[in-house]
Amino acid sequence: MKNFDTVSWVENSLQIVAQTKLPVEFNYLKINDFDVACDAIKRLEVRGAPAIGIAGAFTLYLGTRDFNGDLVGFKKHFLQVAKVLGETRPTAVNLFWAIERIGKIVENFSGEIEQLKKIILGEAQKILQEDKEICRNIGKNGQVLLKNGMTVLTHCNAGGLATADYGTALGVIFSAIENGKKISVFADETRPLLQGSRLTAWELTQRKIDTTLICDGMAAFCMAQGKIDAVIVGADRIASNGDTANKIGTYSLAVNCQKHKIPFYVAAPLSTFDFSIKNGKQIPIEERDKNEIILISDKQIAPKEVNIYNPAFDVTPNDLISAIITERQVFYNPFNDLSNFILGEKK
Amino acid sequence: MKNFDTVSWVENSLQIVAQTKLPVEFNYLKINDFDVACDAIKRLEVRGAPAIGIAGAFTLYLGTRDFNGDLVGFKKHFLQVAKVLGETRPTAVNLFWAIERIGKIVENFSGEIEQLKKIILGEAQKILQEDKEICRNIGKNGQVLLKNGMTVLTHCNAGGLATADYGTALGVIFSAIENGKKISVFADETRPLLQGSRLTAWELTQRKIDTTLICDGMAAFCMAQGKIDAVIVGADRIASNGDTANKIGTYSLAVNCQKHKIPFYVAAPLSTFDFSIKNGKQIPIEERDKNEIILISDKQIAPKEVNIYNPAFDVTPNDLISAIITERQVFYNPFNDLSNFILGEKK
Repeated sequence: MKNFDTVSWVENSLQIVAQTKLPVEFNYLKINDFDVACDAIKRLEVRGAPAIGIAGAFTLYLGTRDFNGDLVGFKKHFLQVAKVLGETRPTAVNLFWAIERIGKIVENFSGEIEQLKKIILGEAQKILQEDKEICRNIGKNGQVLLKNGMTVLTHCNAGGLATADYGTALGVIFSAIENGKKISVFADETRPLLQGSRLTAWELTQRKIDTTLICDGMAAFCMAQGKIDAVIVGADRIASNGDTANKIGTYSLAVNCQKHKIPFYVAAPLSTFDFSIKNGKQIPIEERDKNEIILISDKQIAPKEVNIYNPAFDVTPNDLISAIITERQVFYNPFNDLSNFILGEKK
Repeated sequence: MKNFDTVSWVENSLQIVAQTKLPVEFNYLKINDFDVACDAIKRLEVRGAPAIGIAGAFTLYLGTRDFNGDLVGFKKHFLQVAKVLGETRPTAVNLFWAIERIGKIVENFSGEIEQLKKIILGEAQKILQEDKEICRNIGKNGQVLLKNGMTVLTHCNAGGLATADYGTALGVIFSAIENGKKISVFADETRPLLQGSRLTAWELTQRKIDTTLICDGMAAFCMAQGKIDAVIVGADRIASNGDTANKIGTYSLAVNCQKHKIPFYVAAPLSTFDFSIKNGKQIPIEERDKNEIILISDKQIAPKEVNIYNPAFDVTPNDLISAIITERQVFYNPFNDLSNFILGEKK
């Protein structure tokens, strides 16, 4: 397989896989400039909650490393940089998590700004390294759920391209294969932005994993035909009760898993949990531009005068989720005590 | 609205709306040649079970009108023509229904072949005319199921563009609106061939009906949000027990209707019933080319080495269908006696 680092720090630059060119071209972008980095995040050259968090952390360094002045000025400048960065993807929780994590360090710092700059870069590298470990632990914990010979359906891209290099939902599959199991994958193409076709199918075929691409509306029929043994998806935000926001189309899969008695798994780092909300009804759902549905690669495929409803995410209620796989452990349904458990562990 | 005849016979030619150019261009194709007609059916320039049946009938005439020879030779030639035509769309029962209807006339005919040619053309025109009446009766029978203020979700295109001019599933909506009810429509885009975006959204906005286009994976979430009051779809083939083959993605909607306690209606002419089969398991499912999923308007969106599963249809079991709306009456679930009833009526 082609080895790739989705987000990395190379020769004093932020290096990312240019995802909008996939699957036709595989290139890296080397980014030395804060504005260019923000634009790359906005244009989805880097996407997937964990990868956005990592890229965001390095982007904070790019936005502050050339600052000249005193510490008070630096801290003001940092807040401005963080604000601009935060506006690139307003719903990406991991972006704000990274901003907050580094922001606290900046806020509490007293000393030379050149030292602070090094600390910011070091923290970004730590976030990157942690992601690699977290994903491998998610994989290790989750792979026990997959049996030899299974065919697993996934939606959107929760793979190496959504993280530093290994993935959450796909990490579980990679780990099962590394453990000697034969696993086949069905990938939903994931309209409107086709992350399944463009990214997941690419990533899996690069790794020589037996992969079948289908349209989103085909998944239920594949289940009825007995082609699917389990579904694994990532998550964008998980409420205290286990309700899970993920790429639009996930909920339909979960309903169909219930109908066909197929296990439905969510794989995500603990940082995806939002304990400030009790359930999925409190998760805001981003609605995106109508042209994502009306145009495909600049070709008009629908009348311009039609109304469009384009939610980027949906919410799957906890009762449809068989288990949530994290880097610490697998949580099984029912999730009544999920919040207390994790909060208790954290203490 | 733009008036259009989806399939008609004009100046001794088969005239069809060029559906692959919609919604950007509205044009007619005039077809004088059997092979061109078969190609147009295969390339989905004309699609939708009833429209394929009508176009198929005229295509039989195109394939036989230039035959020179004796009646025995003509009958042999007809069988060959019918075989080639039948291979264009193997799942569409209306095509075989039209072939059988005209085939019986040919089989039993004795007389001059020029007279037989005229009879074939006349029968095709009769099928066309009948479709117009059938669709209006489906609309009339079905519209009682729709209440003022409802929002109805439909999949693929079972509208004027799938019939001579009025539609089956959309005909029910048109009839409700003609009866003074306010009806809004949600249309699934219907991957891979986007009949919902390209055809249904076009047809409904032409008719100034409040229409919202969504991706297929969004339908379940719309139901969970209370945006959908009923689902109406067409059918490609209905087995004796009510199991219904329709465009891929239909089954997923039916499962989600059951989950959300939303009525799921099928609207189709009696010619869509195939009493030679007991249930949906016996319906052959056409698998189409992998490039329908790998390419969009010639742009590659998935790696070429990935496997593709591309069934054109799925089968919805009878227990998920609230009612089947036909030109004669509405059949309500359970459909245990559907076959006996219709066969009894037919006697």
